Amino acid sequence: MEKVVESQNLGFETGLPQSELDCCFGTRKPYRLVSREYQKESSVIRVRGVEFGPGRFVVMAGPCAVESRDQTLRIARAVKEAGAHVLRGGAYKPRSSPYSFRGLGLEGLKILREASLETGLPLITEAIDLECLPSVCEYADIVQIGARNMQNFALLEAAGKLRKPVMIKRAFSATIDEWLAAAEYIMQGGNEQVLLCERGLRSYDPNTRNLLDISAVPVVEELSHLPVVVDPSHSTGKRTLVAPVSKASLAAGARAILVDVHDRPDEALVDGAQALLPSELKDLVESLRKIASAMEVTLK
Amino acid sequence: MEKVVESQNLGFETGLPQSELDCCFGTRKPYRLVSREYQKESSVIRVRGVEFGPGRFVVMAGPCAVESRDQTLRIARAVKEAGAHVLRGGAYKPRSSPYSFRGLGLEGLKILREASLETGLPLITEAIDLECLPSVCEYADIVQIGARNMQNFALLEAAGKLRKPVMIKRAFSATIDEWLAAAEYIMQGGNEQVLLCERGLRSYDPNTRNLLDISAVPVVEELSHLPVVVDPSHSTGKRTLVAPVSKASLAAGARAILVDVHDRPDEALVDGAQALLPSELKDLVESLRKIASAMEVTLK
Amino acid sequence: MEKVVESQNLGFETGLPQSELDCCFGTRKPYRLVSREYQKESSVIRVRGVEFGPGRFVVMAGPCAVESRDQTLRIARAVKEAGAHVLRGGAYKPRSSPYSFRGLGLEGLKILREASLETGLPLITEAIDLECLPSVCEYADIVQIGARNMQNFALLEAAGKLRKPVMIKRAFSATIDEWLAAAEYIMQGGNEQVLLCERGLRSYDPNTRNLLDISAVPVVEELSHLPVVVDPSHSTGKRTLVAPVSKASLAAGARAILVDVHDRPDEALVDGAQALLPSELKDLVESLRKIASAMEVTLK
Amino acid sequence: MEKVVESQNLGFETGLPQSELDCCFGTRKPYRLVSREYQKESSVIRVRGVEFGPGRFVVMAGPCAVESRDQTLRIARAVKEAGAHVLRGGAYKPRSSPYSFRGLGLEGLKILREASLETGLPLITEAIDLECLPSVCEYADIVQIGARNMQNFALLEAAGKLRKPVMIKRAFSATIDEWLAAAEYIMQGGNEQVLLCERGLRSYDPNTRNLLDISAVPVVEELSHLPVVVDPSHSTGKRTLVAPVSKASLAAGARAILVDVHDRPDEALVDGAQALLPSELKDLVESLRKIASAMEVTLK
Repeated sequence: MEKVVESQNLGFETGLPQSELDCCFGTRKPYRLVSREYQKESSVIRVRGVEFGPGRFVVMAGPCAVESRDQTLRIARAVKEAGAHVLRGGAYKPRSSPYSFRGLGLEGLKILREASLETGLPLITEAIDLECLPSVCEYADIVQIGARNMQNFALLEAAGKLRKPVMIKRAFSATIDEWLAAAEYIMQGGNEQVLLCERGLRSYDPNTRNLLDISAVPVVEELSHLPVVVDPSHSTGKRTLVAPVSKASLAAGARAILVDVHDRPDEALVDGAQALLPSELKDLVESLRKIASAMEVTLK
Repeated sequence: MEKVVESQNLGFETGLPQSELDCCFGTRKPYRLVSREYQKESSVIRVRGVEFGPGRFVVMAGPCAVESRDQTLRIARAVKEAGAHVLRGGAYKPRSSPYSFRGLGLEGLKILREASLETGLPLITEAIDLECLPSVCEYADIVQIGARNMQNFALLEAAGKLRKPVMIKRAFSATIDEWLAAAEYIMQGGNEQVLLCERGLRSYDPNTRNLLDISAVPVVEELSHLPVVVDPSHSTGKRTLVAPVSKASLAAGARAILVDVHDRPDEALVDGAQALLPSELKDLVESLRKIASAMEVTLK
Repeated sequence: MEKVVESQNLGFETGLPQSELDCCFGTRKPYRLVSREYQKESSVIRVRGVEFGPGRFVVMAGPCAVESRDQTLRIARAVKEAGAHVLRGGAYKPRSSPYSFRGLGLEGLKILREASLETGLPLITEAIDLECLPSVCEYADIVQIGARNMQNFALLEAAGKLRKPVMIKRAFSATIDEWLAAAEYIMQGGNEQVLLCERGLRSYDPNTRNLLDISAVPVVEELSHLPVVVDPSHSTGKRTLVAPVSKASLAAGARAILVDVHDRPDEALVDGAQALLPSELKDLVESLRKIASAMEVTLK
Repeated sequence: MEKVVESQNLGFETGLPQSELDCCFGTRKPYRLVSREYQKESSVIRVRGVEFGPGRFVVMAGPCAVESRDQTLRIARAVKEAGAHVLRGGAYKPRSSPYSFRGLGLEGLKILREASLETGLPLITEAIDLECLPSVCEYADIVQIGARNMQNFALLEAAGKLRKPVMIKRAFSATIDEWLAAAEYIMQGGNEQVLLCERGLRSYDPNTRNLLDISAVPVVEELSHLPVVVDPSHSTGKRTLVAPVSKASLAAGARAILVDVHDRPDEALVDGAQALLPSELKDLVESLRKIASAMEVTLK
């Protein structure tokens, strides 16, 4: 059974009496609305014809950061041509150091929107704070909340008032319960359209940038009705690992991947080492399509 | 050599040309103003007569959360009597679950202020978002930024414009470089009065709530001129571990500790299991005084 | 290109002059013989007709521990019937506590041998110390060295003198370099028939027993010519997670999985919660076969 | 209350009926003999006049590895002169790579023994496997079992039959329960003279080699009657961090430290970067003496 949540679909009421909430905490879980107990059927998030949910697999791809109009349009066309379903790209970049490139901001959003319209691909892009959230919501089809903001509760509550899908990334060392509780903040605000993105945990091995928790995919599938996305680019940090990890994500039951692509990775301002070439994305989509078919999953 | 930063002291100019910044990145560090290379002498942060810096040790203590006026005044008097120098207490509580107690808000700030005035202890309390920051700044002597907000860059930038000391806690799995880069956001905004608080990393052993990184104290002492504080309560999560870990913090070179105290821990709304009784704090301060004296450190 | 290593195949000579070894350490890697630089083609380990290497996928399954002759024969027949290629089972069990069940020892080996002969499935079982190694080597087709013994160098060196394949599990928090260096100890002793088994890292989330490092599969594929195996049972610790994680392992490029199976898991003396039922294994093999086929991988 | 265990003291009987063991597992702990429930008073391990236990603090120091007779005697005299109570030094070195220097073996033991006799300092040195254990036991006063061997159960059981103190290091990512269960293997064999050494956990921050778990000191003090030692050298991996971390260990309640010292660290074959100079050790002992005195702890 599924419950389809249209992107245009407006809100719902959480207004449960406190007693019912308490009762729910017989499970000792810090969340309720995101749980399988609350909603048995899996949620399907539908965005401009693309669906995230059981039996589908969505490829979201694009540049980590918008660097220029030319670069963005070029890459957007290439990922469309390679078979991607959603365009990703960062206009606002959260950066550990204040001296790093922080993105083109509103100018970047406009470029992304142009690329989205030209290619027909829905757009996912990150909102890094309350200030940029309204603009991001205006230009994007899916609003991304990054790992560093997973417990930025003010931002989560604001995202709960949006009427657009929100994808929330798991923080570097968050437990699965904390991640689901973060999603609960959004759902509690009235926004049912939530995607959960696993992007790797902090770890100690220098061979990868982070440590992808592949088991989190079926764990969340058991605990929650919300779709799980995997980011194979930020988790591995290395181009050659993106394809095998993407296939693993599909096989483990993820509903989508979020992939960095750049046609000139050596010139990329951000994270070039992990970006696929468009031709590599094309090969990857081809491989994914075969595996998806064997799993009776639709990858258009 | 020391550089004393008065709490009343107003701003400074970062306005370095980009070339000088680049040059500094010969060190490949994501921060500059917080580094020992930039300022050789240790910073001393002075707040209403209390000093954080070499040769001093400050005890900050109080309830994890303000629950009521009576509870807060009672505990404030008790920690003053036990020898604490600064009053801590939470009016805004960041909580993993939206269903947990989130603090009394502005009402809590007013109660804390009253307790601070009555006891003469300067007040440290947390600002959890941009919305509450102005109020927190108005009522508090030191503004705390919590672990979950360590990379909430909008909040850090706003804290950089304050003219009050800011204490920034290390995130659950932040590297020391990321923590210092977070402090850099604040200093870059013009606020030199920054304290760094180690509060334990995410770990796997159920005997403690988090894993205190005691080595971070001397590591930061080498890398930065800013004072380091340790939170023995949130790192261990257990009353009986607070005293030994506090002594270890002093011995390792920390300039202060931040301790949860509650006179009726079984009734505490938040984190009662880790709160010291006032009498235990008194014993701890006595022990710390002896060790401090042996180290030629002043603990008034 | 492949290099097939027959199980009957006897030794080779490492005897390189020290200068050549030093030269090799231009790579600053703590291993040499296991590296892709040393041997470009992937190793294929052949054991009684079963092959571990590119283009094949092997299912090893059986009880975590031998509890009785009846239980073992019953489960062995069931896993054969479900499509497994190799029989697993523990006669010697390394246990954190001296009070836990430590296996039937030599008696267990004899039972496993009988089950192996009856079903025709080659046998993999663990040697936990030097004392049991000769017996294990006599009865088993593949000798397993467990995670706790990954840096038991005396055991590794003894395994290097065997003329049987050895599967070495990655320790709870070993880096990939340390794991490969452990395999180097075996190869340096003259035994080329080494399998590497990822079984999950120590982590903090209670939803899984360990944290499977799925990216390690393609990382090792790049660094080494040796085949990688995944243990979905010990990594997840939970029956319902075994199938999705097994599929992910195949998709990521693993050459085999090692699965706990029990027909009466509630009565299992060891790790019943993670054991698949025989019927679940059969379904899993069916699913794996489809995905393998889509990847042009042979799963007989 | 204390229970003094003389190094010459011979064995005891574990022979408890199974029912009593089961009863003890009402605590659900994987150990019994090492627990505070089993023995309320703290154990004091006495070795040639040096005591490990409450109210004492022991400094064990010396070269990480024996490189030559001259180097070892030189450093042994220097650490004696600096105030150390026990001589440490490695004749057998467990190394991740088979190509690293693995120590001088029996020749090294003889050199260490000579240095121990000349200086009058009892000797602690590591046994890396069953083969070298009898020799190590013959030459050493305290037998060290390293982190990599913490779950080498055959070695632990052999150590349980010795009539010499054994110091067991915590593995890279062992829980405290696993560490105590490893000690249980030794005590169950009849050897009561067990020291527990915390040496840092695997972590992700490049500023330190490992992550010292300082809270483990008071945690073990609560759970067990055995004395805890800290290794500030291997945990931090950096000379400048050794002194602050040593002081923290004393303040947290550790009964001893184990410190690498080298008079020519740039020439050291193993771990030179973390070795103190003899003059630095002397300063450290002076500082420790003052803190110990403030804590009413004897550091001769």
